[in-house]
Amino acid sequence: MSKPTPISGFPEWTPAQRMIEQFVLDRIRATFELYGFAPLETRAVEPLDQLLRKGETSKEVYVIRRLHEEPGATAGDDSLGLHFDLTVPFARYVLENAGKLQFPFRRYQIQKVWRGERPQEGRYREFVQADIDIVDRDTLAAHHEAEMPLVIGDALRSLPIPPVTIQVNNRKICEGFYRGIGLTDPEATLRAVDKLDKIGPAKVADLLAETAGASPAQAKACLALAEISAPDASFADAVHALGVTDPLLEEGIAELVAVVQTAAAHSPGLCVADLRIARGLDYYTGTVYETQLAGYERFGSICSGGRYDNLASAGAVSYPGVGISIGVTRLLGLLFGAGELSVSRSVPTCVLVAVANEEQRTASNRVAEALRRQGVPTEVSPSAAKFGKQIRYAERRGIPYVWFPGAEGAADEVKDIRSGTQVEAVAGQWTPPAADRTPLVG
Amino acid sequence: MSKPTPISGFPEWTPAQRMIEQFVLDRIRATFELYGFAPLETRAVEPLDQLLRKGETSKEVYVIRRLHEEPGATAGDDSLGLHFDLTVPFARYVLENAGKLQFPFRRYQIQKVWRGERPQEGRYREFVQADIDIVDRDTLAAHHEAEMPLVIGDALRSLPIPPVTIQVNNRKICEGFYRGIGLTDPEATLRAVDKLDKIGPAKVADLLAETAGASPAQAKACLALAEISAPDASFADAVHALGVTDPLLEEGIAELVAVVQTAAAHSPGLCVADLRIARGLDYYTGTVYETQLAGYERFGSICSGGRYDNLASAGAVSYPGVGISIGVTRLLGLLFGAGELSVSRSVPTCVLVAVANEEQRTASNRVAEALRRQGVPTEVSPSAAKFGKQIRYAERRGIPYVWFPGAEGAADEVKDIRSGTQVEAVAGQWTPPAADRTPLVG
Repeated sequence: MSKPTPISGFPEWTPAQRMIEQFVLDRIRATFELYGFAPLETRAVEPLDQLLRKGETSKEVYVIRRLHEEPGATAGDDSLGLHFDLTVPFARYVLENAGKLQFPFRRYQIQKVWRGERPQEGRYREFVQADIDIVDRDTLAAHHEAEMPLVIGDALRSLPIPPVTIQVNNRKICEGFYRGIGLTDPEATLRAVDKLDKIGPAKVADLLAETAGASPAQAKACLALAEISAPDASFADAVHALGVTDPLLEEGIAELVAVVQTAAAHSPGLCVADLRIARGLDYYTGTVYETQLAGYERFGSICSGGRYDNLASAGAVSYPGVGISIGVTRLLGLLFGAGELSVSRSVPTCVLVAVANEEQRTASNRVAEALRRQGVPTEVSPSAAKFGKQIRYAERRGIPYVWFPGAEGAADEVKDIRSGTQVEAVAGQWTPPAADRTPLVG
Repeated sequence: MSKPTPISGFPEWTPAQRMIEQFVLDRIRATFELYGFAPLETRAVEPLDQLLRKGETSKEVYVIRRLHEEPGATAGDDSLGLHFDLTVPFARYVLENAGKLQFPFRRYQIQKVWRGERPQEGRYREFVQADIDIVDRDTLAAHHEAEMPLVIGDALRSLPIPPVTIQVNNRKICEGFYRGIGLTDPEATLRAVDKLDKIGPAKVADLLAETAGASPAQAKACLALAEISAPDASFADAVHALGVTDPLLEEGIAELVAVVQTAAAHSPGLCVADLRIARGLDYYTGTVYETQLAGYERFGSICSGGRYDNLASAGAVSYPGVGISIGVTRLLGLLFGAGELSVSRSVPTCVLVAVANEEQRTASNRVAEALRRQGVPTEVSPSAAKFGKQIRYAERRGIPYVWFPGAEGAADEVKDIRSGTQVEAVAGQWTPPAADRTPLVG
């Protein structure tokens, strides 16, 4: 068999990187649970018609079929695709299980998703997302929109990564403002403003004229709104200074003030009201979130979401929600690429028990059992080679301790192979310093 | 939108069941790490030719393609399939990364796999496996085969499930024995013997005559071998009593004796030598493992594997390995189906902080922050409804405590809503009993 090669867009971490990823996922999960979000996992596949409801993303969907589909089979499998996010499956899950769920329903979901996009740095075809959402029946209180940044702030700041800033806006501000200045197509307007970072204000003004029928004055007002950014409620004054009035605009301002103030009370500097944040053409109807990682801004948001009122409804009942999603693979890919995250060893093992000769393997196994009962990750040496070679086995993997079972009644000894210190020890009593017990990520 | 319905073979647990699954996966992972296995995750897709190397399983593979594949695109995506186990991807990963890995390489891998089989109880199209493997370069010491049952025994016995028995056999025993009695097609013989549980000894004898050219005496000898079962090394005497001699048979007996004795020293009763265990037509060349869950034997093995010498090789270098895989979804599906596993609440939340009125939400948020800093999973009440209604919110989810922030300088109070006991408490100092902190699984 010839040597296999990687598949573009489908990243695979080394075991050491996977240890870092698990550390990151454990911390994120712990924070989500600390806020009372219940875990959920949905199947990897959805009916294709569900996946295509959003329209725009259809080109990204992977369809699956059984290799040997029976000729007379129903369309069942043919119409399944891999999910491209966790929000669409969650909305489907809520509708399917509404009778069994308690509302408001708070859930987190950490899973892989797949998109057939062109791979590039920070963009993958298979990647992990970590989502939280709160969904209620009929109405969802706006204070849930203020809670999202607290959770995400705590989750991301529990990680050994650069500082993050969560940028928030509110769709009602944009739509109310556009309506207030007489523009009738808020979606086209948003779509144009969303390109600000990519094409600059002059071209956005042209686009506004072209696609949203904006006059030069209207385009100028839209751009002025998008330029507003403040770390506190003062953004509201800046909006009011533009002299536009509209009830939806005022509703949006009040909601965004609450989000910014709640975040500031929790952790100053975490949130910034940034009125250019639009989140494309998505299904958002209230607060929207994006997140910048300091030093990696050019790769875009690492954590995004917003409020959606119309994603799930059955008959007269609707399930408005708010959610946010951490792009875990993007985050790790960027930091791994920059050599920014490391782990103190490439295996979980803290102690390698040496084997004097194969006849003594049982004695070494007994030592290992005693160490494991103390919660110390332990391997028994795979060979009874010279001790120097067994020590090198540990060294190459970063295992900090080698244990030598005592021969013929002599005491056991344990050697810290970093310092060379070797001391007598009793398996079942000895434990390593806390910092050595599990690999350190930093 | 009409109510969505489940897709057969793609199970989805409730949040409470998912908490149980996470508990189970955490315990399994902790045991794997305690034995020094490093984590690995491979992409969900493999080139189709890799997946079809085993031949027999080709009908089960799911192929993926991009919905809007460009007409002129290369075959890239067309020839990808979802992996149906974690062993084939692991063998591929080892070949691809051999230069970067330290051998023997011990890894665990816990992921979903997909098979297009007909769904039935205990069989799914999407399910989670938890695998460990040890792979070395050129040769792999036999003592690694004796280590597998220790790890699996510890992992499964850390779970609140019925007792398990690991059945072990060794391919060398079968092949050596068949050769020793003059049968020349060991694969056909194994295939026939493997049907013993399904079709009984008389029909197996017919099949042996038909497909392996066995005489009545040879068929009888094969059946006599398959009937041997012992919890200790005495199986070897029973084999020898059949009067067959062959060097490969003796090698297999010695290896299986070591496996059984190592397991007995670690935990008596865990392992049984059972010479009918064949593991079908797979790639195994030494020890093979199956695992019975007491009371669920009719659903088959919940944890299987074996030694394989020829799964991965590149040029003159081969990578023999031994591995075993826990069928986590099958295990959980059976126990959930029997109502055997439960969790003490349906959310991680330990404390619900009441909200007296919306103006006081900030004060309740502050209490929640102080509780979370103590590691206590906490939610703030979603509404400032009457306290009775807020208590019912907690009750319905099994949240054990409701916290009442004190009004106007009065002390806060916390109520255990199970007992009704309400006491004064200070957020940041109060902590719940350890048993209440996280949901209990049992």
